[in-house]
Amino acid sequence: MEIFGDSISGNCLKVKWTADLLGVDYRWVETSVLTGATRTPAFLAMSPAGQVPLLRFDDGRTLAQSNAIILHFAEGSRLIPNDGFLRAKMLEWLFWEQYSHEPYVAVARFQLHYLGKAASDLEPKIVERGKAALKLLDDALLNRDFLVGGALSLADVALVAYTRVADEGGFALADYPAVERWIAGVEDALGILDGNP
Amino acid sequence: MEIFGDSISGNCLKVKWTADLLGVDYRWVETSVLTGATRTPAFLAMSPAGQVPLLRFDDGRTLAQSNAIILHFAEGSRLIPNDGFLRAKMLEWLFWEQYSHEPYVAVARFQLHYLGKAASDLEPKIVERGKAALKLLDDALLNRDFLVGGALSLADVALVAYTRVADEGGFALADYPAVERWIAGVEDALGILDGNP
Repeated sequence: MEIFGDSISGNCLKVKWTADLLGVDYRWVETSVLTGATRTPAFLAMSPAGQVPLLRFDDGRTLAQSNAIILHFAEGSRLIPNDGFLRAKMLEWLFWEQYSHEPYVAVARFQLHYLGKAASDLEPKIVERGKAALKLLDDALLNRDFLVGGALSLADVALVAYTRVADEGGFALADYPAVERWIAGVEDALGILDGNP
Repeated sequence: MEIFGDSISGNCLKVKWTADLLGVDYRWVETSVLTGATRTPAFLAMSPAGQVPLLRFDDGRTLAQSNAIILHFAEGSRLIPNDGFLRAKMLEWLFWEQYSHEPYVAVARFQLHYLGKAASDLEPKIVERGKAALKLLDDALLNRDFLVGGALSLADVALVAYTRVADEGGFALADYPAVERWIAGVEDALGILDGNP
């Protein structure tokens, strides 16, 4: 199968990390959001929403949405808790990530780090809600190594993707010590090397 | 168990409809977002994100995020496809709903219908992306009665919640005939009566 993804995108990296950790066999097709590669007619024919990551199976069927793709890869694996309540809490984090974290933490980073916007030109709502998301994460991680249960799950994979580069969006990770400790642990569990995407 | 929800919120109604359809036993605790009931210290202690719907189990544990709650209720039921690929497509729609539909279609409705904003004062991005979401839905539903496979699934439940009241957000549902037909079918399958939330 093929994964169409942009290596600067945490949403895409989640998918890569999950596939690598679980030994999924795939070909990575680098697809840049900055050069318009996700807006070509050929790409839109595969992905009407024009978003990466996109998974294409060998028979041509496609699957979009980063968290749907990692849930598909991880089905039956140790990255999804067996316990029904913990599994539901993991899903709670995945939906929270896309609704209350990514639209602020990732969008601030994209605008500052990739579009060259000045920090003072960010929409105040983005900064305020990004900080609120990081604070909520910090509170949740105060006495835990992982977000759900006692082990790495998709919740950590999904949330670490943009949290670990939040500094690039003008957020000071040093203000969230439990988050910083958790990032190091999740990076270690995922085999993410410093300086590597 | 208790469901804390606001009857004006599609996110909350999704949870109610799913529970009712599956015969889940619960007590509904009406919790208004307009009167600040989701911002009280007591509510925030249960739900740090301050969001409804919130499910509280009898032992006090809680679960937030509408789509995580309906996935929990529906586990093993006919509302989740057995086939792995179809199940993944259903999840794709659930994440798309929270990222690309709700923040525009539901937010426009809340601002116009509940906060009394004028249509001309809506952020243009909200209108534009709401229309794009409805167009994408219309295209997807052109030759189908339900979003995934040939039967009602959580994808329909989640998407119909705010789509059916999109007119209240200034979107003209008449412009999306496949969507209108699908709404009628899903309302029928869910037993939603006209004029009833």
